[in-house]
Amino acid sequence: MLEKRILLPKLREAPRLKEIKKIHKGIQSFIHQPPVLSSNSINKLIGTSVYFKCENFQKNGAFKIRGAMSAALSLSNKELQKGITTHSSGNHAQGVAKAAQLLKVPAYIVMPHNSIVSKMNATKELGAKIITCKPTIKDREKTVQKIMNKKGAVYIHPYNDFNVLAGQGTVAIEFLKQQKDLDFLLAPVSGGGLLSGISIVAKKLNPDLKIIGTEPQKADDAFRSFYAKKLILNSNSPQTICDGLRANLGDKTFPIILKNVDKIIRVKEKSIIKAMQLIWERMNIIVEPSSAVPLAAILENKKYFKGRKVGIIVTGGNLDLKNLPF
Amino acid sequence: MLEKRILLPKLREAPRLKEIKKIHKGIQSFIHQPPVLSSNSINKLIGTSVYFKCENFQKNGAFKIRGAMSAALSLSNKELQKGITTHSSGNHAQGVAKAAQLLKVPAYIVMPHNSIVSKMNATKELGAKIITCKPTIKDREKTVQKIMNKKGAVYIHPYNDFNVLAGQGTVAIEFLKQQKDLDFLLAPVSGGGLLSGISIVAKKLNPDLKIIGTEPQKADDAFRSFYAKKLILNSNSPQTICDGLRANLGDKTFPIILKNVDKIIRVKEKSIIKAMQLIWERMNIIVEPSSAVPLAAILENKKYFKGRKVGIIVTGGNLDLKNLPF
Repeated sequence: MLEKRILLPKLREAPRLKEIKKIHKGIQSFIHQPPVLSSNSINKLIGTSVYFKCENFQKNGAFKIRGAMSAALSLSNKELQKGITTHSSGNHAQGVAKAAQLLKVPAYIVMPHNSIVSKMNATKELGAKIITCKPTIKDREKTVQKIMNKKGAVYIHPYNDFNVLAGQGTVAIEFLKQQKDLDFLLAPVSGGGLLSGISIVAKKLNPDLKIIGTEPQKADDAFRSFYAKKLILNSNSPQTICDGLRANLGDKTFPIILKNVDKIIRVKEKSIIKAMQLIWERMNIIVEPSSAVPLAAILENKKYFKGRKVGIIVTGGNLDLKNLPF
Repeated sequence: MLEKRILLPKLREAPRLKEIKKIHKGIQSFIHQPPVLSSNSINKLIGTSVYFKCENFQKNGAFKIRGAMSAALSLSNKELQKGITTHSSGNHAQGVAKAAQLLKVPAYIVMPHNSIVSKMNATKELGAKIITCKPTIKDREKTVQKIMNKKGAVYIHPYNDFNVLAGQGTVAIEFLKQQKDLDFLLAPVSGGGLLSGISIVAKKLNPDLKIIGTEPQKADDAFRSFYAKKLILNSNSPQTICDGLRANLGDKTFPIILKNVDKIIRVKEKSIIKAMQLIWERMNIIVEPSSAVPLAAILENKKYFKGRKVGIIVTGGNLDLKNLPF
């Protein structure tokens, strides 16, 4: 284990800005503070000024290290030295593996046996032990439970955890400092860790800022839950290109979103691909499909955003370069 | 023409730092100041700390706007209103077109009829008039000459021009402020505009900094000229993947390089592709093959750079996304 470490609070209820600020200080030396980029050419095309907070440049190419580190640093030394575990086929796997690597403790990552090989390898490269399982949520959870029993490792949920969502919220602290005069803040929503976390920060720092969650029409549980004011799940396997946005909101993230978020916008698959291609071609940055969803929402609602200043959180850039959708 | 404009000096001899600083101030409001990025994962892999100055995020995705703007702003109002012209199938075409657009004067860009369609379209989108010609240097020059005669437009050379190379040199002023403690500064070399410009700045600001030009073995005129101390040209059509690095040094750029540059390193095509893939995968940024040449030079000379701090100028990110070499 890392010789000197700080101990962050273990959150038992929805975090307040003060706590997220404390967590930001605590994780700061372990994460990057990615730049905010913008593109005159995209702005001209859509008639809106868009600012992209580039978490695709974050450690491991996604914002997930923030939440993983926030959760890991809330564990006691005794807990931490037994290691941390999670199940994930995506960016959260690498986030937890990286947090463990930085803290010099074991990571046990359960991945469905049909996960993308490059993501498995990237997780392995971080020193994590990979345990494969059947690609069902039931077998994923059963396998993690086994590891918890056998190794005493602590489970870090990808989103439905107050420390995790507080960690993801730290991105808004940086973003609203880097770009002060935003009218809108847009982020993709899946399990809601990022959206709930940033909504707490943004609503407190700037009550006039409109916070909008964006998601693929093909995985629109957040939209349906938000407007029905009760949790409604996706079908078992949503067929969106956005592999990072297939999860359902959780009982910890949903109430925070309901309280702070102004709107959820659903977008078509073809708008996502168009937005992704625009970002690649005009900004020369690599973003995964999930990260293109907020820009797709602007493309589909040009009038609504016309002339305004919109901040977008680019969540990640991990994808198979040999399998592009354009 | 732009109502209010500044007039930059028209340079008749190799610029000094003072003049390049003045030009930097003059063009500053027209250009971006791209961030410097680095990747722990690449650094760990090669045992060197590398800092990438991301001119792929510059206007039009390449550093070329700096030189074009420096040259354009040295013209009198009378000259400028007749427009500017150049022949280029690549990033310089867009640099000149963009400079003209910003200054609200005509641009006449001569492009070989076999240029990549997306590059032609991008240049057109900037409001330039495209004139196609045969893909020979003779016909390119003849066509530009015709335009100069007919329209009175002023020719802006892609590199062999003191204002152009001084403009490209401004990238080093920013870079050495953003990253103060470099041991090496690496840039690709083609016609030598960038390398000569930054060498003047870097040698003056930090005489201990080693300045290294890097080029594909398949277009190694700079290497051969540098060590023979006389201009030696490439074969007519060098077969490197780096479409931006096929030009020969010029009689204005070469003496400056000979005076200030410490070394020229040639690299293999397969190292360039490997370096390019590394940058895409580990940094999530889009760079064109030419921009990967400096990292390829480190990959081929790991011992030489081991443990040192190396600055690399990422020259651009314009390429056909449907035709990747990996």
